[in-house]
Amino acid sequence: MCDPFSWEPVGVPARPDGPRLGRLATPHGHVETPAFIPVGTKATVKGVLPETLREVGVQMVLANTYHLALRPGADVVRHLGGLHAMMAWDGPILTDSGGFQVFSLAALREVTDDGVTFRNHIDGARMTLTPESAVGVQNGLGADIVMALDICPPYPCPREDVAEAVRLTLAWARRCRAAHSRDDQALWAIVQGGVERDLRRQCAERLVEMDFPGYAIGGVSVGEGHEHLKAVVDWTAPLLPADRPRYLMGVGELRDVVAAVATGVDLFDCVLPTRNGRNASAYTADGMIRLRNERFRTDSRPIEEGCDCPACRNFSRGTLRHLFHVGEMLGPVLVSIHNLRFYTRLFGRLRTWIRDGRFEAETQALLDRYYRNH
Amino acid sequence: MCDPFSWEPVGVPARPDGPRLGRLATPHGHVETPAFIPVGTKATVKGVLPETLREVGVQMVLANTYHLALRPGADVVRHLGGLHAMMAWDGPILTDSGGFQVFSLAALREVTDDGVTFRNHIDGARMTLTPESAVGVQNGLGADIVMALDICPPYPCPREDVAEAVRLTLAWARRCRAAHSRDDQALWAIVQGGVERDLRRQCAERLVEMDFPGYAIGGVSVGEGHEHLKAVVDWTAPLLPADRPRYLMGVGELRDVVAAVATGVDLFDCVLPTRNGRNASAYTADGMIRLRNERFRTDSRPIEEGCDCPACRNFSRGTLRHLFHVGEMLGPVLVSIHNLRFYTRLFGRLRTWIRDGRFEAETQALLDRYYRNH
Repeated sequence: MCDPFSWEPVGVPARPDGPRLGRLATPHGHVETPAFIPVGTKATVKGVLPETLREVGVQMVLANTYHLALRPGADVVRHLGGLHAMMAWDGPILTDSGGFQVFSLAALREVTDDGVTFRNHIDGARMTLTPESAVGVQNGLGADIVMALDICPPYPCPREDVAEAVRLTLAWARRCRAAHSRDDQALWAIVQGGVERDLRRQCAERLVEMDFPGYAIGGVSVGEGHEHLKAVVDWTAPLLPADRPRYLMGVGELRDVVAAVATGVDLFDCVLPTRNGRNASAYTADGMIRLRNERFRTDSRPIEEGCDCPACRNFSRGTLRHLFHVGEMLGPVLVSIHNLRFYTRLFGRLRTWIRDGRFEAETQALLDRYYRNH
Repeated sequence: MCDPFSWEPVGVPARPDGPRLGRLATPHGHVETPAFIPVGTKATVKGVLPETLREVGVQMVLANTYHLALRPGADVVRHLGGLHAMMAWDGPILTDSGGFQVFSLAALREVTDDGVTFRNHIDGARMTLTPESAVGVQNGLGADIVMALDICPPYPCPREDVAEAVRLTLAWARRCRAAHSRDDQALWAIVQGGVERDLRRQCAERLVEMDFPGYAIGGVSVGEGHEHLKAVVDWTAPLLPADRPRYLMGVGELRDVVAAVATGVDLFDCVLPTRNGRNASAYTADGMIRLRNERFRTDSRPIEEGCDCPACRNFSRGTLRHLFHVGEMLGPVLVSIHNLRFYTRLFGRLRTWIRDGRFEAETQALLDRYYRNH
């Protein structure tokens, strides 16, 4: 469908539905998968300069269509040279469709076959999002990967509502494909279906028949919990074509990531590393530490021994605690940077372990250690 | 007095009281003067990583003793390895005495010959600052240059109050010198005297008799305006030893800087570049631009053509406007970085113009252009 967007396996996976190594090509370079995609909602990964994203090993970033369509608007983004120019990021970018935010942030939503009408959360203005406009806005923003408009049901949700969401998601995916106008962008479709196995299967099979260059599993991380999430991914991933990239939307909790990679998922986005970083919660191999805690007052160690990030190379836990206590920007900035590095190192290790056939044993040890004190 | 802290002239100044080039030595490297010292109040130049300070040409930074003594406390700073370790800055650092903040931030001040008692602005706790404690705290913080405790009168101020401030400033300078205990720090004295020429002379002459390794002109930028400030510097600078560094405290407005450098001042600190940067005000050769302005909405030019800072290399005015409008940290971060680069480039040019004997003509042209639209 889109030549510059191949996903090719690296090495041979042990099982068709097991963990897999790959390489996603885009017009702005390639991504070694499995990979983590930091979230840059409003065209910036909060507080982190693009050169620092590169430095800590970030390969690809995500921006949110809903937020950018409201401010500054897709026209302004286009005038300013598109998302890559605005973000000063010459690597791959992915935008979502805006649908998830309409369902989580906007008010007075009314869904018809045509699309969804809502009042936005900034000025309450009435707006309509259709498959055609979702794609049109994303064509304007200019990301490498754009997403079809879907409907993401909450959890829990009556089965008939999930079925209706699948019906519309399928109809809208087809219309998105018809509306998509840029060869230098790939349009990926999203599998919905809640925690209903047959609806997940139905949605996946219909979308695969439409032959998209990539597939996402959506509608998770909405409160269903680890076991349901794992089940959804276990049911869905094996139904997706082995030669196309698989993207699990909005998932970043470590046990969820490991379970999904084990089933052959390639890409993940999540706000957790940066949101936690802004709140002084720092990832370590032994679990999260909360840097505002009194016990770090005179702790001259880095967040994590052996971490090569700019925060750990230069700043002690005691200094970071001080920066948060006095409200200095550098606290959130530095811990966001560390947390992003934690994720890129984690994914680097996942790739190594897949390559070396040590994935199960190593990830079990990693999770045991990370969650030991929880 | 302190060997590692020589200031040596570079080249021969045209007049003994004219602009001068020099080189200040410290245990953490040297500073080419005239130089600008960014303010890192709470042990961080707000929002800017130390590696970025280096990248934009910053040579030396300042931290505020009053703020650090309150939070995290001098003991904690010492436990964390001192200010250089905390700030991850291996270049020269200067701390002020805390006196200025006591007079500008604290409440219920009571001044006696012994020192000043006040309630701090964080939790209202009653504290006393004496010459001995001001030096003791600064010895604990570990900056290269530390300042004697002085009394900074407001403007306007009755002459008898200014005279009393000079009397205490002189007595306290002597006590600070006696209390100073670290050979790897230089203690500089501060000339007070308001806008009273004879009091400035009296204060400067007495301090010079005490033979400090460096001298500051304090008690300016308190509302007296450009002409008064210029007069104070014109009276005072020629009274200071030609072979010692001269530091004008808290001054950063361009016309004030140029006037003071013209009279032989070497060092300046000011919050303006970073404070303005956080408020979306960016320095250019044609004056300040306010990036929140509607006219920058689709402006794809950098803040200033030809500027080599990370903001100008990568981000458009339109993008910066967007970042401020949506409340993203990267806006304040980037414009602070640009403004710091504006100052280091400005001071680099001042040094070149002094060396080449073009100081007067070039600075006149610079100020004409900068203030043309004001």
